Amino acid sequence: MNEELPELVGKRIYVCGKLHPQIRVAMREIEQSDSLFPDGSTEPNPPVRVYDCSGPWGDPDCHCTVEKGIPRMREPWIAARGDVEHTRSGALVAADCVKPPTQRSYASRGIITPEMEYVAIRENLGREEVYKAVYDRFPDRKSRPEEVQVMLDELGTGMPRPSELEKLDNFGPKSMQRRADIGYRHPADYAEKTGVHAPAYYTPEFVRDELAAGRALIPANINHPEAEPMIIGRRFLCKINANIGNSAISSDIRQEVHKLRRAVQWGADTVMDLSTGTDIHRTREWILRNSPVPIGTVPIYQALEKCGGHVEQLTWQIFRDTLLEQAEQGVDYVTLHAALLQRFVPFTASRATGIVSRGGSIMAKWMMIHDQENFLFTHWAEVCAILAAYDVAVSIGDGLRPGSIADANDFPQLAELEIQGDLTQSAWRCGVQVMNEGPGHVPLHLIPENMRKQMSWCHEAPFYTLGPLPTDIAPGYDHITGAIGGAMIAQRGCAMLCYVTRKEHLGLPDAEDVREAVVTYKLAAHAADLAKGHPAAQLRDNALAKARFEFRWEDQFNLSLDPQRAREYHDQTLPHANAKKAHFCSMCGPNFCAMKLSQEIRELHPDRS
Amino acid sequence: MNEELPELVGKRIYVCGKLHPQIRVAMREIEQSDSLFPDGSTEPNPPVRVYDCSGPWGDPDCHCTVEKGIPRMREPWIAARGDVEHTRSGALVAADCVKPPTQRSYASRGIITPEMEYVAIRENLGREEVYKAVYDRFPDRKSRPEEVQVMLDELGTGMPRPSELEKLDNFGPKSMQRRADIGYRHPADYAEKTGVHAPAYYTPEFVRDELAAGRALIPANINHPEAEPMIIGRRFLCKINANIGNSAISSDIRQEVHKLRRAVQWGADTVMDLSTGTDIHRTREWILRNSPVPIGTVPIYQALEKCGGHVEQLTWQIFRDTLLEQAEQGVDYVTLHAALLQRFVPFTASRATGIVSRGGSIMAKWMMIHDQENFLFTHWAEVCAILAAYDVAVSIGDGLRPGSIADANDFPQLAELEIQGDLTQSAWRCGVQVMNEGPGHVPLHLIPENMRKQMSWCHEAPFYTLGPLPTDIAPGYDHITGAIGGAMIAQRGCAMLCYVTRKEHLGLPDAEDVREAVVTYKLAAHAADLAKGHPAAQLRDNALAKARFEFRWEDQFNLSLDPQRAREYHDQTLPHANAKKAHFCSMCGPNFCAMKLSQEIRELHPDRS
Repeated sequence: MNEELPELVGKRIYVCGKLHPQIRVAMREIEQSDSLFPDGSTEPNPPVRVYDCSGPWGDPDCHCTVEKGIPRMREPWIAARGDVEHTRSGALVAADCVKPPTQRSYASRGIITPEMEYVAIRENLGREEVYKAVYDRFPDRKSRPEEVQVMLDELGTGMPRPSELEKLDNFGPKSMQRRADIGYRHPADYAEKTGVHAPAYYTPEFVRDELAAGRALIPANINHPEAEPMIIGRRFLCKINANIGNSAISSDIRQEVHKLRRAVQWGADTVMDLSTGTDIHRTREWILRNSPVPIGTVPIYQALEKCGGHVEQLTWQIFRDTLLEQAEQGVDYVTLHAALLQRFVPFTASRATGIVSRGGSIMAKWMMIHDQENFLFTHWAEVCAILAAYDVAVSIGDGLRPGSIADANDFPQLAELEIQGDLTQSAWRCGVQVMNEGPGHVPLHLIPENMRKQMSWCHEAPFYTLGPLPTDIAPGYDHITGAIGGAMIAQRGCAMLCYVTRKEHLGLPDAEDVREAVVTYKLAAHAADLAKGHPAAQLRDNALAKARFEFRWEDQFNLSLDPQRAREYHDQTLPHANAKKAHFCSMCGPNFCAMKLSQEIRELHPDRS
Repeated sequence: MNEELPELVGKRIYVCGKLHPQIRVAMREIEQSDSLFPDGSTEPNPPVRVYDCSGPWGDPDCHCTVEKGIPRMREPWIAARGDVEHTRSGALVAADCVKPPTQRSYASRGIITPEMEYVAIRENLGREEVYKAVYDRFPDRKSRPEEVQVMLDELGTGMPRPSELEKLDNFGPKSMQRRADIGYRHPADYAEKTGVHAPAYYTPEFVRDELAAGRALIPANINHPEAEPMIIGRRFLCKINANIGNSAISSDIRQEVHKLRRAVQWGADTVMDLSTGTDIHRTREWILRNSPVPIGTVPIYQALEKCGGHVEQLTWQIFRDTLLEQAEQGVDYVTLHAALLQRFVPFTASRATGIVSRGGSIMAKWMMIHDQENFLFTHWAEVCAILAAYDVAVSIGDGLRPGSIADANDFPQLAELEIQGDLTQSAWRCGVQVMNEGPGHVPLHLIPENMRKQMSWCHEAPFYTLGPLPTDIAPGYDHITGAIGGAMIAQRGCAMLCYVTRKEHLGLPDAEDVREAVVTYKLAAHAADLAKGHPAAQLRDNALAKARFEFRWEDQFNLSLDPQRAREYHDQTLPHANAKKAHFCSMCGPNFCAMKLSQEIRELHPDRS
């Protein structure tokens, strides 16, 4: 039942904070072997630092058990702020309603929290090490700041190998001109135009500024101190969410926790618990106490369970109690379908696929039965007050997202988006952190419009999309469909992609489906990060490309998003250990290996390399 | 060893030609079950016609054997033109060099061949049936041509259900205005701007015009009469190529033919035989005699085998003989790395990954050893004369395509692209059909530039890309990486995508890898066709979406790109036969099914549906 957990390649390291020295940001450092040259000489390759979501589960020195849960890392940070008190049930809650304990509120008040410094360090990845290498090599950097800058730009996109560093003296307007002549554009040129550009270096102050502006959020409920801070915003690394959760049809609690661990070890940045079956509260408790990443939920599912599945019995009171219960338990963000207004519902009747959001259809049916406005909308101020008191972020749902190409960008979808924008602003005023959910099924040519309208109508709040899926005809392959649309919208600024598994539209994903989906979405998000010119993104590509060119097979596997699979596929054709040192692979064989021929060409032109 | 061939869902039908009544264009027609309404009434759903590459292998009435090969469908068409004669070896060759027997030459001379009418019928798919249905319903169409046009536009993108048809009287400036208000754009608006728009209806004359302009090609060697005509051009359905071929490391002939059959049954539009091992000629003979799709090769591989793998022993004479041998055998298109000039090679030495094209690296090494210009470039006129005499199309290779993100859009790549453009024009002057090969590893933000420059520098000749792969860090998942880049470039006009399997960079693909890759690229190509506004593309999405919404599970499976997998995934959670009639699936269970709730809402608002 419980398939093995993925092996995490590389060494667990921790980078400490400066403003907040108690911070220890977990990363993995992937060691590389030396480059070997034809003359027998060697050259070391620097280790590559990668983002690591696995938390204590990924630290070989940390011996956690599912029963005990993982350490409560943020507990002292929260306590030190002195702005929370205990409820009767023992949970933490804001002591002062005017200054809520939310990351947004701190940011607005000019306070840089440990959470903010944590994510700044996390987002920089190996960037700092590269800077140090450059500076060490050119101690006179202060006299030539422009040239160093040019080189650093190149490093972010080019190959950080010593031969490049030595060319520093040749850098200047001319070589830049040659690049311009042939049409080269630095990703930042493109990214700046679309407002998705990352800074050259993440500072805690930059993080604070993005949070205060509402362009980013750090979902971090004060009752979920186990979670490591993680930022969602278009000027940061694009994040991905994995869904788990049992349904009335199958699954059990231990399996869900195991899925959680698999998801974060593969690289999920947040996990949504979408359980709808029995034991919702207990399942969530196990998940929260074991999760190093923020946990999201759709509270209406549990509220409906409390009504025995009878939509007509739902009330604001039942919902409010459920929201409070989840906030006290530690849920970091909740999807609320508050922008789905009563007057929009009839417009879905003529759609090809009506309403396809579970939460959306529950709210719609409730409004139809009672002929009343959405209670989440009418009680929005009360909702926001609850969220602010626990720093639960809100993900304003898109209950009317299109469920087919035919319905993309239609009136009900865009009408709801406009209301999402209004609710965003009022939630911000209460100090609540906000993101907006987006589609859904959208053909490629209509995707940019979704991003543009969301950015404009929702005041630059982070966008969080499910796909989009640019065709309906690929059930069984919809992880790929969604990755195509996801990469496209993330490149334009979508801050987080919700994964779609290959079982989407067909059945419940198993562990292998989760692996396939998480890696696929990491891939799509990374492709977007490259295009956005994130300063650290391309370092890993460059390292892998160099390993590939130099036939360092083990390094190539280790730097992959899924090292086990890369190794397994290689070994299917060439299983022997010495094939890992071969200067060819099974695709072309030794006589036709382009890489090998190309290296021979390099030897014929030593002056050019 | 030989895994089972995929089951082809639907009924094989043939559509006959009008200009050339002997033409019978194969398609598959997927029957659907009736829609069932809550009041017990039913409504039929029209069958959906899909493109079918499987040739005689896909016709249950055709009993072919691999040993005998498939019927030589085009033989009488070729003979009837009376412009070919037999060589001593028995192959066909042009009788008259001035008027070569190429589809380009016929098109330029204003001749509409059976091949041209064949592809026109093929590209229209089910479109004609939809038109007929509309016209039957509105016999007074001639008095209201504009309204019918508006409705046909809607049909191409909206839901072709009777309730839509009945709304015809309500169609007019106002409803269009509402669409415009909410930002709706017909794909054709977008597509026209970028020059990728398809006509509302494909006519043989339209095909001829595109061929004469060089914007499209029909690879159709006069010695490969088994192949069904297939068109490659940006204003047609985007095509995909699958690679097969043995290497020195593994594979055998029967396995290659089996791979070919699997590839075409899954939907590959062309197949490249990239064999490099022993028995190249015999392997290719088996493949050609059994292939209903055009076959491409890279002749330099065989030329090099004739030299025992010693690049220095390659000569123009050996190459020419090889090219002639393949032309007489029936190869439909050849990749020639003729645009890789000697002066570009040194620039690859400082690249991150040098030269990654096998053919490109062979030519580069030859030029370095002999200090001579590329013999394909210096003998281009002679090359073109050979190609024209057999109607072998040329796919001008991109030997310097980037092999990593770091090398994308660099000087050597773009320098070669410029020469590809020059060679395109001179090949056209000889009557040769041409396409250009493109990258490779390119980050998302640099993909549009590749398409723009190719379209401009290569005079709108069709572009045929490998990927592009927008990141280097996903070995084991590079079918997905390539599908992301492929969808993006195809949307902008790339005419054919060469598949990349998940074994790319790691090993040789097996049958299951081929299935996964072909379906993934069909998905990417289809997403691009939707965005390009191809008139028939969305009919299938709409039918599948409707089947999904109405819980017609079997129809949903059958309309999928991979029906077996869709069914298999569904059955993993709900294996019982009656689950195929259930009005929910295992993802949400009966109480949380959005589709079910949405249908209940529709029942509450019958007046709006």
